[in-house]
Amino acid sequence: MTDRLDAWGALARLREAGPLVHCITNYVAMDVTANALLAIGASPAMVHANEEVEDFVSISSALVVNIGTLSPAWVQAMERAADRAVARGTPWVLDPVGAGATAYRTRTARDLAGRHPSVIRGNASEILSLAGEVGGTRGVDSTRGAGEASGVARELARGLGSVVAVTGQVDYVTDGRRSLAVEHGHPMMTRVTALGCALAGITGAFLAVEPEPLRAAAYALALFGLAGEMAATGAIGPGTLRVRIVDALHVLDTLPQREIRIHEV
Amino acid sequence: MTDRLDAWGALARLREAGPLVHCITNYVAMDVTANALLAIGASPAMVHANEEVEDFVSISSALVVNIGTLSPAWVQAMERAADRAVARGTPWVLDPVGAGATAYRTRTARDLAGRHPSVIRGNASEILSLAGEVGGTRGVDSTRGAGEASGVARELARGLGSVVAVTGQVDYVTDGRRSLAVEHGHPMMTRVTALGCALAGITGAFLAVEPEPLRAAAYALALFGLAGEMAATGAIGPGTLRVRIVDALHVLDTLPQREIRIHEV
Amino acid sequence: MTDRLDAWGALARLREAGPLVHCITNYVAMDVTANALLAIGASPAMVHANEEVEDFVSISSALVVNIGTLSPAWVQAMERAADRAVARGTPWVLDPVGAGATAYRTRTARDLAGRHPSVIRGNASEILSLAGEVGGTRGVDSTRGAGEASGVARELARGLGSVVAVTGQVDYVTDGRRSLAVEHGHPMMTRVTALGCALAGITGAFLAVEPEPLRAAAYALALFGLAGEMAATGAIGPGTLRVRIVDALHVLDTLPQREIRIHEV
Repeated sequence: MTDRLDAWGALARLREAGPLVHCITNYVAMDVTANALLAIGASPAMVHANEEVEDFVSISSALVVNIGTLSPAWVQAMERAADRAVARGTPWVLDPVGAGATAYRTRTARDLAGRHPSVIRGNASEILSLAGEVGGTRGVDSTRGAGEASGVARELARGLGSVVAVTGQVDYVTDGRRSLAVEHGHPMMTRVTALGCALAGITGAFLAVEPEPLRAAAYALALFGLAGEMAATGAIGPGTLRVRIVDALHVLDTLPQREIRIHEV
Repeated sequence: MTDRLDAWGALARLREAGPLVHCITNYVAMDVTANALLAIGASPAMVHANEEVEDFVSISSALVVNIGTLSPAWVQAMERAADRAVARGTPWVLDPVGAGATAYRTRTARDLAGRHPSVIRGNASEILSLAGEVGGTRGVDSTRGAGEASGVARELARGLGSVVAVTGQVDYVTDGRRSLAVEHGHPMMTRVTALGCALAGITGAFLAVEPEPLRAAAYALALFGLAGEMAATGAIGPGTLRVRIVDALHVLDTLPQREIRIHEV
Repeated sequence: MTDRLDAWGALARLREAGPLVHCITNYVAMDVTANALLAIGASPAMVHANEEVEDFVSISSALVVNIGTLSPAWVQAMERAADRAVARGTPWVLDPVGAGATAYRTRTARDLAGRHPSVIRGNASEILSLAGEVGGTRGVDSTRGAGEASGVARELARGLGSVVAVTGQVDYVTDGRRSLAVEHGHPMMTRVTALGCALAGITGAFLAVEPEPLRAAAYALALFGLAGEMAATGAIGPGTLRVRIVDALHVLDTLPQREIRIHEV
């Protein structure tokens, strides 16, 4: 399959389509997610009111749900939006931020995971928590490597019928049958808040133009990671890195194309 | 009238006054709006609780209402704040983000538009939607040019008794009798989230020092657009652009003054 | 006491520990607070739901409560979180943003101040307002110098049993018996939104590794101010300044150590 992977082609389609991506995401992530989506060529909208989420899903090409700063009214909107997305055949991404840290968060994440997301993106601790394993989440950061979670991710993907992406030093993405490893990114990215959330947004944008969720997720992981690598070159610290990642997403395909490191595992 | 327009003089008064601008705006826009207002010399405050919005309007020099991430409690606060502003003679700006995208959003925008805002700032689709035309909004982005909406804007301004500003490649601002075109800005600004919202904030700051809303809106459009032009020079992408716009607002009047392109239409 | 102050040693312990800092802060401040905390080596989490704040405090090393964009459900969560923190012996910081501006805000700030925060950080107007003095707050900015509030801060600290930090051109921090002046920072920092809020976050991170709140607050004030000075060198405006402050926090202790200007008063 990998020989037919074409991240650059998908990016070109994304730029051409400029898909409307409906995000119900956390307060911290909204700004950087919107800017990352605009930079890569999508049209983001942050819409969370129960009074309009279903209507908004209906005009969107993808939905992204992120529980980072959840509360009951927002969770209700997430559920409604997810159900509407599934009913319409609109792809949707779940980012179960901090699953495992509190009972409320874990319960909400599992409930949403059961509503047929196209892709679930989390760090190792979050994915392990979704799969019922206890421990490993420390606030919203993972204490486990992505590799530790790759077997569990495969089972989880099979059980839920969703693609599961585990991000870490190497990212794993699996649909339960096939698994891909994506080797992009830079360690300093972990010192910028909400980049994982922005990546979930970018995954939504790729789902809008790539019907196979496994591929869409791998493309998002690879190109977002590549933008991070480009941005990190010469960056003094995470302030500069964040600015340059948005710049890099904007110019990604105008530079000599770098090698995309996705391989089957 | 244009020969008496003096954007630089108004900016000097703004810097001198440092007006308190009360913003009830969306989650995505809060950060860049606050930073843009601070950079231009105003004192922004984001206050939305029903328990205090009326008190806060009463100590502010202008109010800015933006429905980007609306929900019922916030809409109620917007209504109260707007009514209090009108009762006190405090100028206020309405930014009807995404009007036309959902019924809830359109209804809310129209309700607020009927509460005597000093200035309504929107893209072409939002303004057309306020005027009762159907279609043209795609999420929170416009699918129509500002020029298409200029006639409708004039009627809307006349009907509501508000100044209407339609932003696009060229911006139009009208009080229903006179209309001005403002030719500033840069295409890359559309790839940075919430700059239109920040502009609405800046419009509030100018309303605090310029009693005629038509002029205040034109000054805000021109100088914010000019800051965007300055910022775009040499910017690699929208990450850098955003940072530099805030810088440009800070130094705008310390550099040799550029020509302000506002003309009657 | 000052001869035993060791800000750099505390920073080294912070980097080593990477403490989880639970923030219930305002919408404007979340992004820059999270990025500042990540840059200095802490692990921030923004969690506000009544359904989980107590659980989250229980796994955190410090709590930071900031009332910038308060509303009833959030205030309830702040109270619960603060009480749980005190019950567990977890240090917590109160940032009474805009106390004095409205009755609701002043009432909330005073209620929280009575719940035994380890450190209260505010500008002069906010501290005077907490102490029952009327006037001086203008929106969320102070119209009073920190020096004016230093006597009141000392009495307030004694009365509440909390350390009180008053930020301004020179910062004062007192536990009611001893008082320190911290001479760091740069005037342009007042033109970047939410830096005071980010400082409150950083104070929480130092409280996690320094048991004496007076020292923790002084270290946070000094090192955050120092990062601001480093960032201001050559910065065109507040856009660049903000990016560079995050960078500076990241590299602060990799550069030749500058003198820390803390002295008893």
